[in-house]
Amino acid sequence: MPRRPRAPKYAHTPGYADLDFAKVDLDRLERCGASEVIYGPGKTAPQILKIAQTLQAEKQPVLITRLDAAKARSLKKSLRRFTYDAPSQLGSMGAHPSIQSFTLGVCAAGTSDLPVAEEAARTAEFFGMRVERITDVGVAGIHRLLAQQERLRACDCLIVIAGMEAALPSVVGGLVACPLIAVPTRVGYGWHMEGLGAMLGMLNSCASGMTVVNIDNGFGAAYAALRIARIAAKGHKARS
Amino acid sequence: MPRRPRAPKYAHTPGYADLDFAKVDLDRLERCGASEVIYGPGKTAPQILKIAQTLQAEKQPVLITRLDAAKARSLKKSLRRFTYDAPSQLGSMGAHPSIQSFTLGVCAAGTSDLPVAEEAARTAEFFGMRVERITDVGVAGIHRLLAQQERLRACDCLIVIAGMEAALPSVVGGLVACPLIAVPTRVGYGWHMEGLGAMLGMLNSCASGMTVVNIDNGFGAAYAALRIARIAAKGHKARS
Amino acid sequence: MPRRPRAPKYAHTPGYADLDFAKVDLDRLERCGASEVIYGPGKTAPQILKIAQTLQAEKQPVLITRLDAAKARSLKKSLRRFTYDAPSQLGSMGAHPSIQSFTLGVCAAGTSDLPVAEEAARTAEFFGMRVERITDVGVAGIHRLLAQQERLRACDCLIVIAGMEAALPSVVGGLVACPLIAVPTRVGYGWHMEGLGAMLGMLNSCASGMTVVNIDNGFGAAYAALRIARIAAKGHKARS
Amino acid sequence: MPRRPRAPKYAHTPGYADLDFAKVDLDRLERCGASEVIYGPGKTAPQILKIAQTLQAEKQPVLITRLDAAKARSLKKSLRRFTYDAPSQLGSMGAHPSIQSFTLGVCAAGTSDLPVAEEAARTAEFFGMRVERITDVGVAGIHRLLAQQERLRACDCLIVIAGMEAALPSVVGGLVACPLIAVPTRVGYGWHMEGLGAMLGMLNSCASGMTVVNIDNGFGAAYAALRIARIAAKGHKARS
Amino acid sequence: MPRRPRAPKYAHTPGYADLDFAKVDLDRLERCGASEVIYGPGKTAPQILKIAQTLQAEKQPVLITRLDAAKARSLKKSLRRFTYDAPSQLGSMGAHPSIQSFTLGVCAAGTSDLPVAEEAARTAEFFGMRVERITDVGVAGIHRLLAQQERLRACDCLIVIAGMEAALPSVVGGLVACPLIAVPTRVGYGWHMEGLGAMLGMLNSCASGMTVVNIDNGFGAAYAALRIARIAAKGHKARS
Amino acid sequence: MPRRPRAPKYAHTPGYADLDFAKVDLDRLERCGASEVIYGPGKTAPQILKIAQTLQAEKQPVLITRLDAAKARSLKKSLRRFTYDAPSQLGSMGAHPSIQSFTLGVCAAGTSDLPVAEEAARTAEFFGMRVERITDVGVAGIHRLLAQQERLRACDCLIVIAGMEAALPSVVGGLVACPLIAVPTRVGYGWHMEGLGAMLGMLNSCASGMTVVNIDNGFGAAYAALRIARIAAKGHKARS
Amino acid sequence: MPRRPRAPKYAHTPGYADLDFAKVDLDRLERCGASEVIYGPGKTAPQILKIAQTLQAEKQPVLITRLDAAKARSLKKSLRRFTYDAPSQLGSMGAHPSIQSFTLGVCAAGTSDLPVAEEAARTAEFFGMRVERITDVGVAGIHRLLAQQERLRACDCLIVIAGMEAALPSVVGGLVACPLIAVPTRVGYGWHMEGLGAMLGMLNSCASGMTVVNIDNGFGAAYAALRIARIAAKGHKARS
Amino acid sequence: MPRRPRAPKYAHTPGYADLDFAKVDLDRLERCGASEVIYGPGKTAPQILKIAQTLQAEKQPVLITRLDAAKARSLKKSLRRFTYDAPSQLGSMGAHPSIQSFTLGVCAAGTSDLPVAEEAARTAEFFGMRVERITDVGVAGIHRLLAQQERLRACDCLIVIAGMEAALPSVVGGLVACPLIAVPTRVGYGWHMEGLGAMLGMLNSCASGMTVVNIDNGFGAAYAALRIARIAAKGHKARS
Repeated sequence: MPRRPRAPKYAHTPGYADLDFAKVDLDRLERCGASEVIYGPGKTAPQILKIAQTLQAEKQPVLITRLDAAKARSLKKSLRRFTYDAPSQLGSMGAHPSIQSFTLGVCAAGTSDLPVAEEAARTAEFFGMRVERITDVGVAGIHRLLAQQERLRACDCLIVIAGMEAALPSVVGGLVACPLIAVPTRVGYGWHMEGLGAMLGMLNSCASGMTVVNIDNGFGAAYAALRIARIAAKGHKARS
Repeated sequence: MPRRPRAPKYAHTPGYADLDFAKVDLDRLERCGASEVIYGPGKTAPQILKIAQTLQAEKQPVLITRLDAAKARSLKKSLRRFTYDAPSQLGSMGAHPSIQSFTLGVCAAGTSDLPVAEEAARTAEFFGMRVERITDVGVAGIHRLLAQQERLRACDCLIVIAGMEAALPSVVGGLVACPLIAVPTRVGYGWHMEGLGAMLGMLNSCASGMTVVNIDNGFGAAYAALRIARIAAKGHKARS
Repeated sequence: MPRRPRAPKYAHTPGYADLDFAKVDLDRLERCGASEVIYGPGKTAPQILKIAQTLQAEKQPVLITRLDAAKARSLKKSLRRFTYDAPSQLGSMGAHPSIQSFTLGVCAAGTSDLPVAEEAARTAEFFGMRVERITDVGVAGIHRLLAQQERLRACDCLIVIAGMEAALPSVVGGLVACPLIAVPTRVGYGWHMEGLGAMLGMLNSCASGMTVVNIDNGFGAAYAALRIARIAAKGHKARS
Repeated sequence: MPRRPRAPKYAHTPGYADLDFAKVDLDRLERCGASEVIYGPGKTAPQILKIAQTLQAEKQPVLITRLDAAKARSLKKSLRRFTYDAPSQLGSMGAHPSIQSFTLGVCAAGTSDLPVAEEAARTAEFFGMRVERITDVGVAGIHRLLAQQERLRACDCLIVIAGMEAALPSVVGGLVACPLIAVPTRVGYGWHMEGLGAMLGMLNSCASGMTVVNIDNGFGAAYAALRIARIAAKGHKARS
Repeated sequence: MPRRPRAPKYAHTPGYADLDFAKVDLDRLERCGASEVIYGPGKTAPQILKIAQTLQAEKQPVLITRLDAAKARSLKKSLRRFTYDAPSQLGSMGAHPSIQSFTLGVCAAGTSDLPVAEEAARTAEFFGMRVERITDVGVAGIHRLLAQQERLRACDCLIVIAGMEAALPSVVGGLVACPLIAVPTRVGYGWHMEGLGAMLGMLNSCASGMTVVNIDNGFGAAYAALRIARIAAKGHKARS
Repeated sequence: MPRRPRAPKYAHTPGYADLDFAKVDLDRLERCGASEVIYGPGKTAPQILKIAQTLQAEKQPVLITRLDAAKARSLKKSLRRFTYDAPSQLGSMGAHPSIQSFTLGVCAAGTSDLPVAEEAARTAEFFGMRVERITDVGVAGIHRLLAQQERLRACDCLIVIAGMEAALPSVVGGLVACPLIAVPTRVGYGWHMEGLGAMLGMLNSCASGMTVVNIDNGFGAAYAALRIARIAAKGHKARS
Repeated sequence: MPRRPRAPKYAHTPGYADLDFAKVDLDRLERCGASEVIYGPGKTAPQILKIAQTLQAEKQPVLITRLDAAKARSLKKSLRRFTYDAPSQLGSMGAHPSIQSFTLGVCAAGTSDLPVAEEAARTAEFFGMRVERITDVGVAGIHRLLAQQERLRACDCLIVIAGMEAALPSVVGGLVACPLIAVPTRVGYGWHMEGLGAMLGMLNSCASGMTVVNIDNGFGAAYAALRIARIAAKGHKARS
Repeated sequence: MPRRPRAPKYAHTPGYADLDFAKVDLDRLERCGASEVIYGPGKTAPQILKIAQTLQAEKQPVLITRLDAAKARSLKKSLRRFTYDAPSQLGSMGAHPSIQSFTLGVCAAGTSDLPVAEEAARTAEFFGMRVERITDVGVAGIHRLLAQQERLRACDCLIVIAGMEAALPSVVGGLVACPLIAVPTRVGYGWHMEGLGAMLGMLNSCASGMTVVNIDNGFGAAYAALRIARIAAKGHKARS
């Protein structure tokens, strides 16, 4: 059982659990709308376990990103109710409560972009959002995308994932009015600077009001969607 | 008076005004939530004038970005109700209707970031948002930022503008739960790759769920906030 | 009158006019299908004049690229039948014979791309091609492009010019079967590495069989189209 | 048997086969002159198999690029008439009809450029072109290249493949009038930025009218040649 | 026993031990305040052994950096009193005398930065400094850092280690007056140019008077602290 | 007279003067050892004046960096005791008290590095350090440097300024034991990436324990020296 | 008259003239084979004058590189026998003695490369070499180069200057056996990274044994040729 | 026995042996002063064998660079008199005749630079030069280098190999008058862009007349030395 100061109030006491190798931020759920998420790489399985137990003891849901299969197997033995999804490399225990009346579209240009898309989609589901998946709608056959217009317009927020020249978010951005978060991927032939080509495309999009997260960062895009979903939900809550 | 196909319905007719040198997108207001915005550089004053008149004839508000003073003077002569703000280089006629119950915070790390901050703030005001300005809260004197926490938490969305090492959005991102759009600027000593240092910092922020627009792109950040504000407003509208 | 070896046969004699400061390649018309083109920058007006006269004496048409207005005025005084187009910075005397049954489409994403588009279009006209101009069809309002599909499909070759994220050639490439030469431009907000973002997009296009020339190189794209036009014309010539 | 909408006419119905993980573009043969090509990496063997079967059911020839040996063996078991070439990493079933009177030269600077050259040559043969291979004609011994001039001039289009300083396409470009597509490779000593040195050389060639595809992209070059061959063939067809 | 010129006086004789494959700098302790440190990579275990023995024969303490476990095992067999620490990859024999009244703080932003932090901390201990370790105080939960202010202010010099956006040293730099050496690390999501993002952040910090060493170079930071500690100690020595 | 909260105690009240366009950090002198320094670029002369007056009213010395001559003339009219040095672009009023027994060496490789060297030297003098200038000791004539060894060894800290290949700090670093801060400059022939070549050299120096500041940042180097000088002075103070 | 230690012997006395702002290296002629050359930029005309007079007093010939016209006019007034060449931006007084039996070929790819070629050629003439100029032999018309083979083979050393793809030195390197120094220039269309494209080409040349100097550095190439010429002359001297 | 045209005279017949997969340049010995050298990577052992046999049949010495141990073993079985050196990865049969009165110094900054140094030294010995090896003379202990001055000055040409900040060639360049070829290596801590830092240092050296080859290219440096040695030898030959 880790040494931990008793549930401190922020401003008077630190507000975190000091595990020596880590200071688990127990206030984050209150401050930022989601409990601290554990980044898997560079941590040992026992370290991840301790942080997860600390959060669990505080009744906070647990999400671990970029978790490899070996560590996942090790965690499975010690943690009840732990689940793991290999393609998205996400491990979790519990989940955030469902967010009212909010649909997130996760749109991927090609089949090779699917692992990043799944990281985004499953993170969003953990955070309580309803997710609509729209796959393989790259612009080289634009009729495939145009056939999805109604589904795109029905979403409250869109995450658009693309590699190569990243033309997809620009076209989508010109078709919808909702918030649009673009995620570049490392997918491409020849020279593309490990995804920088796609990111440059998104940052210079001719469709206004698109924002961008780092290359392959499906998790970050879903978290940004959560911040939006909570603001949108405020209105709904106020109503009821 | 420009040659223009009569108000076309999208899908049946093109949906744009063909001015030969430009095809003004008249459907954009309906599709994307804001009328087409005119990017000033690389267009002559007469070209800008014609596009503005076309939008005006369609009863759409007009915004021109990165407009230099000389072109602004020229437009002033031909367009009634045209206003120009030199620091933000924005020209406009009319404005979008006010968006209900939504406050956008525009937060700048230093004095040198103010032109970008004003581009964001005034664009947001044109789009109907209420704007709260928070200036010179760089992290080298963190007490200046901590003193603003209540103001930051009262916002529905934050645009955080910073150059140099761009530490500000990471600290802010750990203090609030609302959507956070980071704008890197070219401000810095010595080698910073024209703002790329700041952008890299924002893309790699340890605060989750931050999104990024291109360097100095205050306009793009405000447009992204608009997309969020409209989703948030849907809940409010639904209520009333 | 420049010192010049008499019209040499290639392989036996040099095949060029030696002007001391330059060796004018008189065989190029025969070898490569077009007379040597004079690149304006870095040459003085008198140097350009001498090279032009040498070509003229050989009955070869003259094209000067990236020619500034001052040098153009100076050449105008000495050369009869010299014409100059300021936006495309092209000067010329004479032109190549018309190429039979070949239409080149020159397609520009936005108004700011027009100078590069004109360099391509006018160079192509000098080389004898019929040119179809299609302007301001950027993908943020995709309906504007889709309305041009018939015009695009009627071309024998397309030059597609775009800055920013350069999504246009990918969408076009998925709509047509003809050769497609993409030209990136320096147009963009914020960080785009002086057009490299657009070029990366084109090199990584998901639409197959697109080729690329250097940033802003409208001339090079037109020359590449000439090489294609001549091959296409061979068939037509053979027929008659 | 995959779920697939019945052969749709474009504009009325989607025109693609929806396999859930992929939307196979069945109209591409008609629109772009070649059936959809399957990019091997990032797809599982079963996924490739299903796409290949879908195309086969539509009587479209199948080409798979960058296919590794393990997946090739797996496909071999399920697909009759499937062939695989290890050096070029190409798998195929069937081929496009032969294109009349068109010879494509594939010219490689050195022995190390051969895998890329074979990808180009075999893709071209799949598309129906006659291919002439010209190997190891790097400029350090220019007499080796000059001895090939007649063969080079007999081609209707040239793909020139080179790494290092990529001088070969510039010299070739000055010797011939036909279309010239340059392919940079990663071959080089020391620092060459993974082929960027060669690509920069090609983009800045002093020989006019050369176009470029991405590093090591022999497939893309062959597809570009196909677009040219079809235009050239139109003349021939018109004649007969 | 290596061939070695007898203890030479600098300026008259070389002042190094010539081992043929290496010239061990025996004067460095006197000139630079620490004996020559052996960089492990690129040297064989026998080579390291010989250099270590040469230093030992001169009564100089031995430190080997970036030493892998295999070579460490080999050295252990031949050298008495040799110790090895796997996480920091440091091997050593003996140590420098303790430096009077000087505390070095080693501050790491996250758990993944610990290997670099340990390289810094243990090198500093070898050099005779007292080390205070402060871990996992990244700015996304700024209250964790603010809770350490007294510890930070009690240090005579700080090494601050961070990856990602490297905001930590800027915040720390605004809280303390002592020398501050920043070490960027390769830790980050997506695109960060192998730590260059963090380094750019530190070089452009808004907190004045921070200096930087190369990416992951914990050893270099500790050596820089040594140079400072010696100057600080001069005052103390002078006093007694 | 600017609106300003009365001298607040840090932790209870903000500790800064709020001038609307800027929040002057009045606590910095106490926290970081020097009053806030005004960065000239991007601020108007009236803005600089107001900040300077605020500091002056608090009895804090004023330093303005990168101040151009026009703004300096304007400030001269309003501020008594204001002095300006054109080569180093520094303006100041008052100075920090002299630091006991500490000599800073400012060492420049060539004549072209002098403006950066003067920025460092005069900033250091403003902060109260004694400065020893050592100029034009580039390594192409190493005897010029070797002749200065005694002067170098007499310093308590060295700032070494160099452009081109930046070999100077490595050689100096091998000759002395004191702290060494390297400043790269933009001086160089041909391609040097605007000083990045020099910075890379310093970051990879074979002389251990060197630290680096950003390109041309003489001010930052002097501030880093101040942090060291204060620690060194603590010992001296303790003694007396 | 500058303060200067009397002609010192190296090793006993410094061997330079100390002018306060500069330390003129008087031994360089003896050590490196040429007197110190004055780099013009970043020095005032009076500074250049003093250094020139110091060298003159020592009977050493004077060369000033990258000297602009204004400073040249100023120097002309004070220095007898001073000559200035505007295109190459070289000023000089006197010259080195002629080097026996050594011809340097200076070969430029195009007219735009001439300023760099002249800097190389005139520097070489100042150093006493016989120079053969070969101009406008770019590879796009390879017959122009092949016609110069005898002249190329008659040289003892070649400087080859080229921008764009820099194919020229590779072709030349395969035709001759003498030393070959390649100089990249900034000449090019579109994106070439300010000459880096040309430099990459030269560093990766398929012709073995070529060496490279920095972009536009004609002076450096000539100095390298001088080092070769002196070694070659040793043999000749030994003979007579 | 490979198919090969009989010993052709250049200009009349090709002058190379056509092995289908390669065109062996038999004239190179005469044109460039050394027989064609075989670059090992990317060729199979049988391919290398055939090229080697072709050269051997022409009585030309054989050198293979970057040859891995497995291929070397395979060649050993088929080729008599074949020798292989593992550290330098060079294989050879025979050697060029000794070059009269020419000593090449190969100077390496550190132990980690030795593999590159050996590639240079052994290539030079294959070409007939006498080689003097000078190792571990990095500038952090400048006395080690100064002790070698006489050896350095006795060389007719120097290859200087260094990684990190590459200060060594600048210091050496200021001590000697002979030709100096600098070779950057990938050796370094942290960020050095795979040796680009060292190359930038060499290209921007303050010591005039240094030339540079690509990173780790010891072979290229030795070939450049050969070109110099032959010119130097001409004088000697002429004498006797």
